Amino acid sequence: MKKLNTSPISGMQELLPQEQAVFNKYKEAIREVYHRHGFLEIETPTIDRAEILFAKAGGETEKQIYKVIKTDESADDADQALRFDHTVPLARYVVEHESNLNFPFKVTQVGRNFRGERAQKGRFREFYQCDIDVIGRGTLAVGYDAEVIQTLIEALKKILPESKLRVRVSNRKLLTAFLEEKNLQEVAKDIFSIIDHSEKVPEEKTLENLRSLGIGDERVQEVLDFMKINGHAGEVSNRLGELGVDSALFEEGRKELIATLNTLSESNVSGDEIVADMRIVRGLDYYTGTVFETILPDHPEIGSVCSGGRYENLAGLYTDQILPGVGGSIGLTRLFYVMSANGLIPEEENNNPVDLAIIPLSEQEEHYCLALARAYRATAGLSVDVVLSDKKLGDKMKYAAKVAKQAVVIGPEEIAAKQHNIKDLATGDITASHVTPEDILNA
Amino acid sequence: MKKLNTSPISGMQELLPQEQAVFNKYKEAIREVYHRHGFLEIETPTIDRAEILFAKAGGETEKQIYKVIKTDESADDADQALRFDHTVPLARYVVEHESNLNFPFKVTQVGRNFRGERAQKGRFREFYQCDIDVIGRGTLAVGYDAEVIQTLIEALKKILPESKLRVRVSNRKLLTAFLEEKNLQEVAKDIFSIIDHSEKVPEEKTLENLRSLGIGDERVQEVLDFMKINGHAGEVSNRLGELGVDSALFEEGRKELIATLNTLSESNVSGDEIVADMRIVRGLDYYTGTVFETILPDHPEIGSVCSGGRYENLAGLYTDQILPGVGGSIGLTRLFYVMSANGLIPEEENNNPVDLAIIPLSEQEEHYCLALARAYRATAGLSVDVVLSDKKLGDKMKYAAKVAKQAVVIGPEEIAAKQHNIKDLATGDITASHVTPEDILNA
Repeated sequence: MKKLNTSPISGMQELLPQEQAVFNKYKEAIREVYHRHGFLEIETPTIDRAEILFAKAGGETEKQIYKVIKTDESADDADQALRFDHTVPLARYVVEHESNLNFPFKVTQVGRNFRGERAQKGRFREFYQCDIDVIGRGTLAVGYDAEVIQTLIEALKKILPESKLRVRVSNRKLLTAFLEEKNLQEVAKDIFSIIDHSEKVPEEKTLENLRSLGIGDERVQEVLDFMKINGHAGEVSNRLGELGVDSALFEEGRKELIATLNTLSESNVSGDEIVADMRIVRGLDYYTGTVFETILPDHPEIGSVCSGGRYENLAGLYTDQILPGVGGSIGLTRLFYVMSANGLIPEEENNNPVDLAIIPLSEQEEHYCLALARAYRATAGLSVDVVLSDKKLGDKMKYAAKVAKQAVVIGPEEIAAKQHNIKDLATGDITASHVTPEDILNA
Repeated sequence: MKKLNTSPISGMQELLPQEQAVFNKYKEAIREVYHRHGFLEIETPTIDRAEILFAKAGGETEKQIYKVIKTDESADDADQALRFDHTVPLARYVVEHESNLNFPFKVTQVGRNFRGERAQKGRFREFYQCDIDVIGRGTLAVGYDAEVIQTLIEALKKILPESKLRVRVSNRKLLTAFLEEKNLQEVAKDIFSIIDHSEKVPEEKTLENLRSLGIGDERVQEVLDFMKINGHAGEVSNRLGELGVDSALFEEGRKELIATLNTLSESNVSGDEIVADMRIVRGLDYYTGTVFETILPDHPEIGSVCSGGRYENLAGLYTDQILPGVGGSIGLTRLFYVMSANGLIPEEENNNPVDLAIIPLSEQEEHYCLALARAYRATAGLSVDVVLSDKKLGDKMKYAAKVAKQAVVIGPEEIAAKQHNIKDLATGDITASHVTPEDILNA
């Protein structure tokens, strides 16, 4: 009988051991790809100065920050809160350690962040984000935009090898310059926001939203036409050219977009779609150039599984040093949830996690079994569980069948014969083995 | 110029990328050993119900708990706090998921815990603990005590391969039964506490503390003599026998202690010391059998680097089901700190983390370099950083020398010749390579 409510707090993802093993495998696969691309891992504290966190958080995010209070509060402590993303602590970190870092600083952070969102299915209050960023000092080559996106695509392919991806890229300089050309600077923020939401509402709603700005039907139509520009590099380049926007910023945005698309297409060996799409603006104000989102065309309901972009200045609130950057993130906790819900985790991932269960027939064989386990770990690199339970043999077998892929029972005969039979618990196949504790000497 | 205080909060360990790489390597090595021994990984939420956390925390710990408050608090939320160890959330987890777990449940948790301790050198408020536990339902074979200690020793040896360890083991049943025999039950708690602190104070202080209990000089001497029992299994077994304690509990404790020591000695291939020591009691009340600590005899000032023990019932506060267990923990954040401070991290761990930096001579060679990087990653499994910086060649070389082990500069000649020279950045050695982007087709 339970005496207290032992369920995790609502909004927390708590996995069973076999699910956790798959989750961790995915997390390691992502980190591995990031490392292969030369991103250096750092880890910032979960708890940070409230001053730092609240300075950067706006609107909804600010309301979602968890504040932290010591039970036995002492006067020496600044106000504290839990980080809500990796970018704000990264900005603090780069400013704090600038003299010890090498720029461009290619950095990855994989860890849990916290947002006190209203609890709902598929939304988590504590969640893993797997970020990469490249931070320059003063300037940062535009080639890193493609490098960040390419690295994220490769990471996604590791955990979604069977799913086609559609990477949708844009550049905020295009819309910014376009709106300047049309004398719509004053409502630019509203238009960015309307476009950002346009795929979540019916088309008429977007039309209505644009009309409500009072910019006239002609301008409304021009914005709608702009939004509809999407496709591959050559096509989009032409259509952008046809707009006849006479602006250095626009030209810069077009060049950056086409260069990024071309680099990505060249690296794209798995047949994923790499497209430009002017509906991609990304809500956050601090993106200033390339922006991107990634969806699974076969599961559009999942939404974006990976997104990010280029920002002009990472840490303007903390330092006068200009630190441009480009980054992106895979939200692994949510992705894992939607993959489970959509049957995207292959059945074989649910195999028992332990390679071999060694079952002593009685207490007499325990020491031998422990030594045999050492030999299997050292010579074959297996994960081995010696079932020491004081239960009956049948119970030990039942336990082994639930945690291990293979099992062996060791009694006096097996020890005397220096041979034992290993049973594959999935197929029932039996294999004779001559491994003995002495084999560890040759390991 | 900094505009805000960007240092991490006091009591937080924030590492530079190269230090983080070593830290992560150690963490992975520990997890790997745990997995090899058949421990299944789980991860509980960082934030848990205050009701659950405060129910189990006593004294000092209770004062150190961080409470958590949503900025925009809504009525649906229970009081929340940050976990201060892995054991309390584990108890909640086991009760919550009992019907989906297999017992004995061999479980590991590697993650960050939080205690608002008074800030001081080498004490951390956010710290990694690497725990293993075996939880039984109803009963749990005593053999798991040695299995837990053995697994922890092997994990420690992975990160301290050159350091001798001294594992000090005792069994709380011995002192409990001894004090009953001597009619000292009423001051048993005080005596446990005095012995627990005896190695941190001068000998006279311990004598004084015992005398202050008013138990008479003879009893004081008997307790002092008991405390001095330590050494290898045979010797300690004899000395415990000579005490003439006529108690089933005492005999049980003696048998468990000797069995645990013998199993450990048999597995001990690296010449570490495995000793019994009656001064080991472990402060926490919930240990009821085997208790252990591990020190580095060459660095006694570091104190225990790994400890734990057997408990009769994991989750008595949450359920009527009896869940005996045995567990232990490596406090990695503190261990890493003391290893750094004591020069115990080998110099070679500070190698640059990236295997190969590929430097395009100009923008013209960038696409080729990106393709070459893909080939190196796929064929040789290297971590490769393409230096896209818009800086001068000399600056790119300086950058490479700080992040990578090897570097190569690619210009038109290297592309035409399908050959390039790789420079080892530590030794200056040059090796010719014929890897080309096309090699990825054979990977």
